[in-house]
Amino acid sequence: MVKVLIVFAHQSSASFNAAAKSAAVEVLTAQGCTVEVSDLYAMNFKAAATAEDIKDYEEYGHFRYQEETRLAWEEGRLVEDITAEQTKLTEADLLIFQFPMYWFSVPAIMKGWIDRVLTCGFAFTGEKRYSQGLLKEKKAMLSFTTGSLESMFSSAGINGDMNVTLWPIQNGILHYCGFQVLPPQIFWAPSCASPEARQTMLEGWRSRLQGLLEEKPLSFISLDCFDPKAFQLTPDVQEKHASQEFGLTVGIHLGKPLPPQNQMKAGC
Amino acid sequence: MVKVLIVFAHQSSASFNAAAKSAAVEVLTAQGCTVEVSDLYAMNFKAAATAEDIKDYEEYGHFRYQEETRLAWEEGRLVEDITAEQTKLTEADLLIFQFPMYWFSVPAIMKGWIDRVLTCGFAFTGEKRYSQGLLKEKKAMLSFTTGSLESMFSSAGINGDMNVTLWPIQNGILHYCGFQVLPPQIFWAPSCASPEARQTMLEGWRSRLQGLLEEKPLSFISLDCFDPKAFQLTPDVQEKHASQEFGLTVGIHLGKPLPPQNQMKAGC
Repeated sequence: MVKVLIVFAHQSSASFNAAAKSAAVEVLTAQGCTVEVSDLYAMNFKAAATAEDIKDYEEYGHFRYQEETRLAWEEGRLVEDITAEQTKLTEADLLIFQFPMYWFSVPAIMKGWIDRVLTCGFAFTGEKRYSQGLLKEKKAMLSFTTGSLESMFSSAGINGDMNVTLWPIQNGILHYCGFQVLPPQIFWAPSCASPEARQTMLEGWRSRLQGLLEEKPLSFISLDCFDPKAFQLTPDVQEKHASQEFGLTVGIHLGKPLPPQNQMKAGC
Repeated sequence: MVKVLIVFAHQSSASFNAAAKSAAVEVLTAQGCTVEVSDLYAMNFKAAATAEDIKDYEEYGHFRYQEETRLAWEEGRLVEDITAEQTKLTEADLLIFQFPMYWFSVPAIMKGWIDRVLTCGFAFTGEKRYSQGLLKEKKAMLSFTTGSLESMFSSAGINGDMNVTLWPIQNGILHYCGFQVLPPQIFWAPSCASPEARQTMLEGWRSRLQGLLEEKPLSFISLDCFDPKAFQLTPDVQEKHASQEFGLTVGIHLGKPLPPQNQMKAGC
């Protein structure tokens, strides 16, 4: 049985985000999935990464969060709100982040979930990351609302291409941990839309959810293509991708342009 | 007299980030600046954007953070930890964010400062944003440490070009509010460096701080160049920039390539 974890960050149960979350719970459950929701505001989820995340932590010298929590993870000394989320994630086959975009990223409370739950040793190590990341058997995706109109996030729009805004999250967080990243679900400015248009957006999401588990993940270049010391693309791979549609060299592993049904513009 | 606000996010006073912050306080003070520091972990700064950010908030129907806080800002009903930061920012000529990069972005506690302090009405409005943003008389910059080596953040590196990772923050947060964005100060993987190399990094920062106030900000395309409805580049501006070195269309307003002394690679 497929298990889904939805990490949800909206303050209001009457919000469009809450409706999108409920639609996912309903459609996925009807398909036989088990769906768990972490409702971060309702949980009053702690966002700040501090020494209190470690049981019996004794300060000596310089506190380094990543190293101390890696050790605490190995020794079973992470606090319970973290380990509870890690248990849910371990059991899940698919992780969905549902949120309103705040300042071109996730809201702080959700960044706190990312900072605190995706512990070194649990989600990745120095050796096991990107296509070798420890969570590589799982899928993950972003589902979010924007305040801006779609045209502002197009390639010639004032906010720049949405693929660029999502790159640090989709590549730097999700793919880094190994997740197979499904294309994002973007609800463009529902607060500016008519009730009918909002309903249509939700119906589009419900329809997508029917086939979500069979969708093809975004493409990223495999860890093997990078030299193992400087983590740069090997010359033969660079040459192979030189004529790709993304002009920025980084573009060659920004992931493939997204199909129109995911409401994204290609980056070129 | 020039006033500087440093928003600082590290748990330990023995950290490299703390040393970078102290260097900034010392060098800027010696130049006659007044320097204020908001030490977010020491302040136990609240990260989550909630209805508690508004005094006497009475829930009715659907809570929308941006709209409710805009109204509360107008009516003087924001809570004191927010207004105290807004007062510091109003007085400041230069804002420096000093932090360790967590998951390709700022730590959650600093994202909380951004989500909660840069209130609609105070920092921007629907009309006054980007080059017309309400904070356009001020300068701002990022100063941060990475865990990854510089080669990993180069254009052919596995993390992708650092300019892309910083785009949502430098364009989407700082420039969006109108700030003149100074080039970032990046300390590459100090935790992997020798004590001597760390010292050299700090000396480079101290030396840069001497002339920081005279530095030229990054370039962004002015709001006037976008049509006022869809906020897309007008055709003549698109044509003018078509031969620019950034191939991704978005790249044309990613800001100019940074000079080597700021330790950034150009994006092409």
